[in-house]
Amino acid sequence: MAGAKETNVPFSRESLEQLLKRRFFYAPSFEIYGGVAGLFDFGPPGCAFQNNIIDAWRKHFILEEDMLEVEATMLTPYEVFKTSGHVDRFSDWMCKDLKSGEIFRADHLVEEVLESRLKGDKLARGENIKDEEEDDENKKKRKKKVKEIKHVKLDDKVVEEYENVLAQIDGYSGPELGELITKFEITNPGTGGKLEPPVEFNLMFDTAIGPSGNLKAYLRPETAQGQFLNFSKLLEFNNDKMPFASASIGKSFRNEIAPRAGLLRVREFLMAEIEHFVDPEDKSHAKFDAVKDLKLKFLPKGVQESGSNELIEKTIGEAVGSGMVDNETLGYFIARIYLFLTKIGTDPSRLRFRQHMSNEMAHYASDCWDAELETSYGWIECVGCADRSAYDLSVHAARTGEKLVVRQPLAEPRVVEKFEIEIAKKKFGPRFRKDAGVVEKWLVSRTQCELEDLGKELKKDGKINVQIKGIEGNIELDSDLISIEKVKRTEHIREYIPNVIEPSFGIGRILYSIFEHQFWARGDDAERGVLSLPPIVAPTKVLLVPLSNSVELQPIVKKVSNVLRKEKIPFKVDDSSASIGKRYARNDELGTPFGITIDFESVKDESVTLRERDSTKQVRGSVKDVIDAIKEITYSEVSWDEGTSKLEVFES
Amino acid sequence: MAGAKETNVPFSRESLEQLLKRRFFYAPSFEIYGGVAGLFDFGPPGCAFQNNIIDAWRKHFILEEDMLEVEATMLTPYEVFKTSGHVDRFSDWMCKDLKSGEIFRADHLVEEVLESRLKGDKLARGENIKDEEEDDENKKKRKKKVKEIKHVKLDDKVVEEYENVLAQIDGYSGPELGELITKFEITNPGTGGKLEPPVEFNLMFDTAIGPSGNLKAYLRPETAQGQFLNFSKLLEFNNDKMPFASASIGKSFRNEIAPRAGLLRVREFLMAEIEHFVDPEDKSHAKFDAVKDLKLKFLPKGVQESGSNELIEKTIGEAVGSGMVDNETLGYFIARIYLFLTKIGTDPSRLRFRQHMSNEMAHYASDCWDAELETSYGWIECVGCADRSAYDLSVHAARTGEKLVVRQPLAEPRVVEKFEIEIAKKKFGPRFRKDAGVVEKWLVSRTQCELEDLGKELKKDGKINVQIKGIEGNIELDSDLISIEKVKRTEHIREYIPNVIEPSFGIGRILYSIFEHQFWARGDDAERGVLSLPPIVAPTKVLLVPLSNSVELQPIVKKVSNVLRKEKIPFKVDDSSASIGKRYARNDELGTPFGITIDFESVKDESVTLRERDSTKQVRGSVKDVIDAIKEITYSEVSWDEGTSKLEVFES
Repeated sequence: MAGAKETNVPFSRESLEQLLKRRFFYAPSFEIYGGVAGLFDFGPPGCAFQNNIIDAWRKHFILEEDMLEVEATMLTPYEVFKTSGHVDRFSDWMCKDLKSGEIFRADHLVEEVLESRLKGDKLARGENIKDEEEDDENKKKRKKKVKEIKHVKLDDKVVEEYENVLAQIDGYSGPELGELITKFEITNPGTGGKLEPPVEFNLMFDTAIGPSGNLKAYLRPETAQGQFLNFSKLLEFNNDKMPFASASIGKSFRNEIAPRAGLLRVREFLMAEIEHFVDPEDKSHAKFDAVKDLKLKFLPKGVQESGSNELIEKTIGEAVGSGMVDNETLGYFIARIYLFLTKIGTDPSRLRFRQHMSNEMAHYASDCWDAELETSYGWIECVGCADRSAYDLSVHAARTGEKLVVRQPLAEPRVVEKFEIEIAKKKFGPRFRKDAGVVEKWLVSRTQCELEDLGKELKKDGKINVQIKGIEGNIELDSDLISIEKVKRTEHIREYIPNVIEPSFGIGRILYSIFEHQFWARGDDAERGVLSLPPIVAPTKVLLVPLSNSVELQPIVKKVSNVLRKEKIPFKVDDSSASIGKRYARNDELGTPFGITIDFESVKDESVTLRERDSTKQVRGSVKDVIDAIKEITYSEVSWDEGTSKLEVFES
Repeated sequence: MAGAKETNVPFSRESLEQLLKRRFFYAPSFEIYGGVAGLFDFGPPGCAFQNNIIDAWRKHFILEEDMLEVEATMLTPYEVFKTSGHVDRFSDWMCKDLKSGEIFRADHLVEEVLESRLKGDKLARGENIKDEEEDDENKKKRKKKVKEIKHVKLDDKVVEEYENVLAQIDGYSGPELGELITKFEITNPGTGGKLEPPVEFNLMFDTAIGPSGNLKAYLRPETAQGQFLNFSKLLEFNNDKMPFASASIGKSFRNEIAPRAGLLRVREFLMAEIEHFVDPEDKSHAKFDAVKDLKLKFLPKGVQESGSNELIEKTIGEAVGSGMVDNETLGYFIARIYLFLTKIGTDPSRLRFRQHMSNEMAHYASDCWDAELETSYGWIECVGCADRSAYDLSVHAARTGEKLVVRQPLAEPRVVEKFEIEIAKKKFGPRFRKDAGVVEKWLVSRTQCELEDLGKELKKDGKINVQIKGIEGNIELDSDLISIEKVKRTEHIREYIPNVIEPSFGIGRILYSIFEHQFWARGDDAERGVLSLPPIVAPTKVLLVPLSNSVELQPIVKKVSNVLRKEKIPFKVDDSSASIGKRYARNDELGTPFGITIDFESVKDESVTLRERDSTKQVRGSVKDVIDAIKEITYSEVSWDEGTSKLEVFES
């Protein structure tokens, strides 16, 4: 776009939120019923903006990389999330004030209280604290949750300790949070009431399927599991070629303890997730060279663990080369995420990649980086990009007995030594009766390591004693029943469980961050808000404005409308009696990048004026040239100057 | 398209379902966990097909009519569905076999048993019953649910009675179904066990929001309520102009008692719903003339109530003119639904509009027509189109105290006589204390009728006694406190609650019906299945097939790929070593309408062959002319002959 955004008005979150509500980008759901925290509805411009972002995502990721799109259900039976670990571990820690019944999310509480104490300390030391954190909305919120900040000077050592805790706040376990609460004497900030120690609260919404109510189920908290469960079908669909990626776009649900910060922490949200399946022995990426020189800002785990937030700037090639980012495929997606986010309107200077700390990362993950966007609420995780290793496919395979593997024909057969078990099947039936099948299945599903150990024991004692799930007591197996030997085999097939690289996008958070990054007020006038949404994602591309209501102008309005419709460019006609200025101001708020003004000259020579939203520059030319310029700038991403080079500068 | 589908193989649902599974259009969710009835995942071609249908829907309805798209949450608090009536009435009737614990949906059970008895009667009379109903899949199903059909001749009167019941099966209440079960001695078809009388089962999935678990909620069973609740915001967004429509596309959930028939009755499904808000005194439609001559097939309620299924063919203009369809707006949408369904691939000869019978229609609806598509499972409701009157807005307004009305400035002020209440506010506080506000609010929200009655009572007795929700005991109001008089007022504004016309699309049902309508086998070969999906909705538009793996062909393959990508035409390259025939057969199953073959001639003169899926006709020309033809046929809906007129017929 033209780029020039002339403003002397500092960013105000309150003004932005008023605009978003006034223009019905989004609003609290069930507002006439008093609303429900953490649930929001999208109005027409919000819907269009979101649809355009999804469309851009589909083109940038699915089409560009030939990914396999999947749509799995949100309703998911208990067993699936028991296996994936969500039933046991997908939870936050909450503290209850037993007197008032209020419930707090433990990590957020510690964060808020320590931040508020640090502010009080700064005030006591006579330092200024940033204006934006003092706006009305925040004041109101603090009043409600954290009492007025007290101007209390803290010991230098305490300040350092607080800052250190805050830098690592995402890494604490529940008991650790409990210790911090005790150590720092944190109480209910509203009442000073004592809090119970943190307890786990599972974040999945539960329900039951079917008329009997016996089939317990959850609403998915992510789309990933649906993709893993379809792995074999997807591999077959891809003609068994590796690597490949699947992708899903859909709603997920998290029963947040205390939703806050508008669209940033909600209970129902749109996700777009990719599961890229890759050979664990080869995580190179064929297209890595195309992105390797892209410079990005990183916050690696070591820096955070030392209590700092200082960013390191380097190319993704260097980051992978030095081992800071684990592998090429992970690096490739980090770069592609950057390109996507900046294309749709996030400010690259407010985008960083933060690595998960060792105690924060899932135990199975080998590396994880979050794309974080800076907003008035701080740095917000908007995209996660994790190497989940073979965890998910392994646990589902183990639980269901279905093989979720790749069978790769070897270019040359290879001779391998491996432990094999031989089973005297005829003796199994009489010996184990109805359990025979279970025992056999258990034996053949042992790993090489386990077989080696069992083999040693069998050799030593002439028998082994094992416990098998589903059978009571010990099972004794002697050399008559089984033998375990190391044998040489010629293999023609290599069988492996692929690893998964998972870029996972929270669309609502990205959307809100773009609003913050692109909102400004024109000149000195705080009331003249503009949303500089990039044309490719703007809800409507063109506002068509006849200068007056005169019937004389109607044929040319109709003509331009028809051309826009034929070219499939989303547009609106505003033929209301409001002044041109008012009509444009409304569309600045809606983020409409282009205006076409139709005047009495237009009737004579079919020329029209094209206005650019950010600079309010105007150019004039034929209907065809103007619409060509709009198409070029919107869909081919050329600059305003380049796109309008054929048109004449126009001063009204 | 070319139109010619030469086949000698009768339709087989089993073959179709095998194809859909083999090509991963869709598959049971959680299959490796044993699956959950009524839940399905979409694979890559299913996703693309569904996305294309949604895209076509958005263009056909939202863009064409300038509708306001809204996205509301699926999680919905209890209060909303209590008000809308879903908590009390959104249920099916189920019968339990107390011995076996099996649960049946009462209406489906009666339907299946009577149909099976009628078949047995026909067999006993020596009549043939249709082949398709005897395929393997059906035999298996019947075995499971209804025992082998017994060749038992029924009395002519009984046959007539059964047929009459079946024609009205959608209209029975639970107790009526119970009477039919007793009268016709219907038992558990598998065991002959006795069934309990039908009881209601609410079809909404429930859950709870927040850590306390106190906020009861449901997953929405339709998207409509989210649109109604946003009515005032939408009206404001539309600059208070009427009529207007909102639209939502999203998932809804119904906890079906016994899901069956694949995608036709599922527990989680995609809906696309329109709420068209209209002046109850003027339901004309500005664009009705454009559709009035469209001929459609109707099954009005009178015909069904007389026990018949005979279709009436007439234009929608005649249907509205004669009053059979209630009003123009309803008629306009019926016509637009027809145009949409036939554009995306349903067979117009298997599409009818069935009117709801009086006992089937919601009590508030003034008229309701379902677009039904004929499939091997019978006629299936795929789109509902109802006039919901002012019901929804009225009940939500009454419950929340928010006005959900249109305020229309009158061209000329008008004098009206109306009852008005005057309240002696000063006396209210002392008299009613904390209840004063509630009493006042109750008084001012009385209707004209109620005021008239209250006024009479007050005149007669000097006081009135009323009961008010939220206040215990009777409230006495005397002439000191209130007066009610008929007064003349000059009004400049007309205030009204709009009526709602609601076209509601079940996308999964439409999708499955298109599969049935467009599936056939080539020639005499039952194994050579073809899905003749219209190009506009086909998952992939073009298959690019190099004749051989020769490196010589690669540059031209790359060139054609680049042009297709630039033109944003979804395509796939198949450079596998399978024969051309095999590669095309695979894509016939995937519904890919066009094939471009690249051979050694192409290297010389850059000409390529274009193949049409249904007729296997081939034409040849330059890359540009071939791709132009594809674009014309796909996106401008011209015929094959017209689109390829520039190209030469090609015989290989």
